[in-house]
Amino acid sequence: MRSTEIVPLGTGSAVPTQGRSFSSVALVRPEETLLFDCGEGTQTRLIESRIRFSRIKSIFLTHLHGDHIFGLPGLLSTMSLLQRREPVRVVGPVGVRQIVEAMPGLGPGQTSFDIEFIQLDDSDRRIVVHETDSYRVFARSVDHGVPAYGYRYEESTKQGTLDVERARAMGITRFEDFRRLKAGDSVVGEGGNVVKSEEVVGASSPGGVFVYVGDTRPCEGSLDLAKGADILYHEATFAADLKQRAAETGHSTAEDAARIARRAKVGRLLLSHFSARYSDIEMLVEEARSDFHDTEAAVELQRYALQRIGTEEADH
Amino acid sequence: MRSTEIVPLGTGSAVPTQGRSFSSVALVRPEETLLFDCGEGTQTRLIESRIRFSRIKSIFLTHLHGDHIFGLPGLLSTMSLLQRREPVRVVGPVGVRQIVEAMPGLGPGQTSFDIEFIQLDDSDRRIVVHETDSYRVFARSVDHGVPAYGYRYEESTKQGTLDVERARAMGITRFEDFRRLKAGDSVVGEGGNVVKSEEVVGASSPGGVFVYVGDTRPCEGSLDLAKGADILYHEATFAADLKQRAAETGHSTAEDAARIARRAKVGRLLLSHFSARYSDIEMLVEEARSDFHDTEAAVELQRYALQRIGTEEADH
Repeated sequence: MRSTEIVPLGTGSAVPTQGRSFSSVALVRPEETLLFDCGEGTQTRLIESRIRFSRIKSIFLTHLHGDHIFGLPGLLSTMSLLQRREPVRVVGPVGVRQIVEAMPGLGPGQTSFDIEFIQLDDSDRRIVVHETDSYRVFARSVDHGVPAYGYRYEESTKQGTLDVERARAMGITRFEDFRRLKAGDSVVGEGGNVVKSEEVVGASSPGGVFVYVGDTRPCEGSLDLAKGADILYHEATFAADLKQRAAETGHSTAEDAARIARRAKVGRLLLSHFSARYSDIEMLVEEARSDFHDTEAAVELQRYALQRIGTEEADH
Repeated sequence: MRSTEIVPLGTGSAVPTQGRSFSSVALVRPEETLLFDCGEGTQTRLIESRIRFSRIKSIFLTHLHGDHIFGLPGLLSTMSLLQRREPVRVVGPVGVRQIVEAMPGLGPGQTSFDIEFIQLDDSDRRIVVHETDSYRVFARSVDHGVPAYGYRYEESTKQGTLDVERARAMGITRFEDFRRLKAGDSVVGEGGNVVKSEEVVGASSPGGVFVYVGDTRPCEGSLDLAKGADILYHEATFAADLKQRAAETGHSTAEDAARIARRAKVGRLLLSHFSARYSDIEMLVEEARSDFHDTEAAVELQRYALQRIGTEEADH
């Protein structure tokens, strides 16, 4: 099975910069795509990354600053032009509905599909904002001066695969017995022998955890969200020498992001949301690496496999 | 003096296409830039074309469909982030103000500069929507099913240059006499000789005319706007075989655009707003050329000099 992939679509911050797009990252599952933030130009980046619009079922917005949401009207309009029928879930701070519906063609009943808005209010603990059989998405408030959220995507434990041939060879023939073996029970085969689940079912594997932290100062919320993540995708607007400016503007330095990554015992840290002042961001990566080694700058349109690295949640 | 240049920023239509941006075209004068339409991604294209945001003083919108305006919130937000002080004029159909002000950070008093909205109502004749000493911009309704306008930019006649050295040599010394010569009068030099204006002042030259016709069926409005233009920038969403679809959706074919160009006796026709179905648009250009020879497809980020070609307005 193809694993889940993380695809950065834009790694710039509010002031546009040649070569960097506005904030957005796609989480591509085999059957659907989740989008986190939707800065201007996101639909263009989706086309360039060959991610199909029809696969996008949920869009999670960290906060209502333009560089994180101004691509949403265009994306939704295009979906409507393409005669989409399946609903789209838009999760974001209170106010997002009003903004979208003020746009021409996006008022209630004007699109070819329903938009399901889930509007968040401050929460100092993780809340589940979306759940399927395969994964859950949590949100929790972070600290950016305006209502802002980070998101944690957690895949369900993947059940081990039943080795049907081996089970048959051990005398298992009834559907009910296959089912019980998969559920972990032992059953008696046709020869009277006992077949244990672990003899024919592979080990279950924990699902991957992806955490997206948009604009924020380092805070308890982002640390909690990040705990034991396989990939932490974290803003790093400034280098350490602009620590003061980061604090004033509600942002993190690369060092701040690394400290969160280390304390949360994540597998891998991807930095994003770089200030336009940095044409070269290698310095930010170096600063972060001095505290957390497995750090990289997110590269737009590159695909990062989400694989379970940690085995348990990190401590506080 | 550097001449006025036309810079297409986006030549696609509503459905996004790899390699084509959404509608926008810049008119770059030595001292300022005028923007016509502002589709999503316009600010990125401006950066790529090295047009400075601070030079943009007026933005003219043809109509309120997303592919022509969804770049406006981002552009205005960036201007505000950059601490712009000079006002920006936004000209467009009634409703544009409400759309802009519904966006986070763009409400009244929230930007670092004033936004002057000029909201248009249907007009079946050219109306002046902006005027300086150097040029005038007219709008007139076109036919797109929703309130929609075309724009005509007309440069004032450029006065001939006074040859000061030559005038001095002919005995002219007083400031008042220089002024009168420039105004076309004859004056008496110090030696008692009569100096005629045409002896020391070069010929005046007519200014260039640029006409921007966004989404529309071929109509009286676009024909009137286009009369005698040096450059007619006209939508050509479809090829001739989709004439019916063009009519139904309020658009023009390349042939339609060429017919307007020929009847309006323009100097040069630039086609734009190509449907996503055409990866190669040479066919559209060929179709148009069979009726109007001086046709090209607008190329994004190329610079087209606006030079006076015609000598008088074409007949109806």
